[in-house]
Amino acid sequence: MSDSALKRLTPIVKESESSPMREMMKMMEEKKDLLSLSAGEARFDAPPELIRLAVDAMQGGKNLYTSTNGIPQIREAISEFARRQWGADLDPATQILMTVGGMEAIYLAMRIVLEKGDKVLLPDPGWGVMRTVVERRGAHVEHYPLEEKGSWTIDHEAILERMDGKTKLVVLNTPSNPTGAMISREGFAALVEKAREKGVFILSDEVYHNYVFEGEHASALSFGSLENLIVVNSFSKTFAVTGWRLGYVVAHPWIIRQMGIYKESISLCSFSIGQWAMAEFLARSEPYLTQAREFCRSNMEKMTARLNAIPGVRCTRPQGGFYVFADFSKIEPSSQKLFKRLLDGGIAVVPGVAFGSRGEGRARLMFACPSDHIDRCMDKIETTLR
Amino acid sequence: MSDSALKRLTPIVKESESSPMREMMKMMEEKKDLLSLSAGEARFDAPPELIRLAVDAMQGGKNLYTSTNGIPQIREAISEFARRQWGADLDPATQILMTVGGMEAIYLAMRIVLEKGDKVLLPDPGWGVMRTVVERRGAHVEHYPLEEKGSWTIDHEAILERMDGKTKLVVLNTPSNPTGAMISREGFAALVEKAREKGVFILSDEVYHNYVFEGEHASALSFGSLENLIVVNSFSKTFAVTGWRLGYVVAHPWIIRQMGIYKESISLCSFSIGQWAMAEFLARSEPYLTQAREFCRSNMEKMTARLNAIPGVRCTRPQGGFYVFADFSKIEPSSQKLFKRLLDGGIAVVPGVAFGSRGEGRARLMFACPSDHIDRCMDKIETTLR
Repeated sequence: MSDSALKRLTPIVKESESSPMREMMKMMEEKKDLLSLSAGEARFDAPPELIRLAVDAMQGGKNLYTSTNGIPQIREAISEFARRQWGADLDPATQILMTVGGMEAIYLAMRIVLEKGDKVLLPDPGWGVMRTVVERRGAHVEHYPLEEKGSWTIDHEAILERMDGKTKLVVLNTPSNPTGAMISREGFAALVEKAREKGVFILSDEVYHNYVFEGEHASALSFGSLENLIVVNSFSKTFAVTGWRLGYVVAHPWIIRQMGIYKESISLCSFSIGQWAMAEFLARSEPYLTQAREFCRSNMEKMTARLNAIPGVRCTRPQGGFYVFADFSKIEPSSQKLFKRLLDGGIAVVPGVAFGSRGEGRARLMFACPSDHIDRCMDKIETTLR
Repeated sequence: MSDSALKRLTPIVKESESSPMREMMKMMEEKKDLLSLSAGEARFDAPPELIRLAVDAMQGGKNLYTSTNGIPQIREAISEFARRQWGADLDPATQILMTVGGMEAIYLAMRIVLEKGDKVLLPDPGWGVMRTVVERRGAHVEHYPLEEKGSWTIDHEAILERMDGKTKLVVLNTPSNPTGAMISREGFAALVEKAREKGVFILSDEVYHNYVFEGEHASALSFGSLENLIVVNSFSKTFAVTGWRLGYVVAHPWIIRQMGIYKESISLCSFSIGQWAMAEFLARSEPYLTQAREFCRSNMEKMTARLNAIPGVRCTRPQGGFYVFADFSKIEPSSQKLFKRLLDGGIAVVPGVAFGSRGEGRARLMFACPSDHIDRCMDKIETTLR
């Protein structure tokens, strides 16, 4: 840093702002023969028909720019999908924007909605990157707790009691990473109504919407008016194509227009091939969605049972998502130490504190992977913790 | 905008900040049977082998997240490519970041380098989005002129005489959109040296680097130390796969690290399939690069000749790029009026003012397309302007 140009720079990204997984990932990369349950994505096959359609599009010359908001065909397909799934009545022309995964949707939403000094309510435990994006806007984070009662749930009362005049945005993640918690339909309805009265936005991150094992997934799209709702979704988690970087956001036309103009100077447009393939596949995706959900359900049951069979480990069944958020505190109260102990034993998990203070003593384990992989990993965890 | 949540929002994106092409694109969309020379991308085939490799990767299950900076294989392939092309000695581990096209690279660079009040030198004529990104950081734009002497050129003296203590960044685009102008090796070397002394960064956007018809392309990568250089490149324009959204940036390790951490909260990672396919293809890309360049050269010659044959039109041969930036001012001094007149005649071009004040009286016409398409378009332009 002795160079004259570099000396003029202020680090706008502090090392501490880095994803909490960064150091951990480095340790994991250096470790050989590691079994891992740490991925933030499904490790099963994408739909073969979707891949065929993508190959056709690629060979058919669809490799060029699309419009910033996405090709009309994919936005129409999403509108139809949302009608079938959630009874939503969306205008493809004005209420949907294609994004570079759910991540860009979240980044753009925070850019458009937040100003310096705004207050944002985030879940604890919750996905760490949310906090980074909020704080880069100069907004303040206040956490609302998720509670483990039987299974993890999102209690709308815990959100409402923290909502005040400074609150600009509430972030929901339903089903949640890392807990699988969902908000009930009634709770969601009450939250939306109160938020509307107070002029508060709700960003509902529903990227795990297909992976629901208990009860019904309440989507923000089922509450009629989008006035104060920003709904983030993605094909990445749903169809195991995270590397395609293809998500979407549904919101009020004014917000979608602002986000679209901003997107022009970040990514110009989203992945063309994925848009063309999904536009055709989405209407026929139901068999895959059901099969993938049941596959995950059975893996979740297996993982939960095996974890609970280890003395000192406690693990409730998640309502949805790809993960269990198991309590190892009787074995090791520090989730970082637990992480290192398991890593030394040859198995990677995500330490609970990566998701906030309420994750201490816990670890996130991913079950959206082949069943025999879960068996091998569980054997290793048992051996290591014995 | 009577809704209580929406009422709280300040439009952070002014309509006027929108890409200058937005209104124009809307007019074009509404027009039927339009012939177009307005695209900002090549309209010829991507390399068949690259498509085959991408198909293999897709069918081979490479559809998942990569690391934020990109898979090691693609960064190594880029390092090798840069060695062959420009004699550069790059460390793949610390000096290269994969991005969502060249656009994300530019966005990230401006985020990391610029602070409120900084001065940035941009070319006029030049690509409009640059200005948007700079101004969103609260930095000030000052333009340096590109001059048409024989052909368009980038004169380093014009840049140096505008460089003062407030100047933080100089943006070069060589070859340039829309003029095809390049900076000479000597001029570039002098600029880099002066900028280093003064602690000024140079962002060199070289996405058209393969399309050089006259003289030698001087890359920022050929000047040794990266200390104050940020080099943006992309596979989009080079290999006619703009829809893949795959670019990269080369810079000092400190800057790459900052950009990578910031990227985690914008796009997480870049398109996986493209990375795998390009990692293998890049070493064998030379025949395609030559063929595509010669194809463009012959189209450029044709277009230039045909334009100059129209009374009142003047068009110099560009040194590089995909475009001619022709002077129609004797026929119609307003480039917007010219655009509308040609549009009414069934042919789309980009009005010169979309690229700054020095573009008045001009239009950008793209020649990276089949030769018979150029003929049909030229026939139409002749008929319309007669």
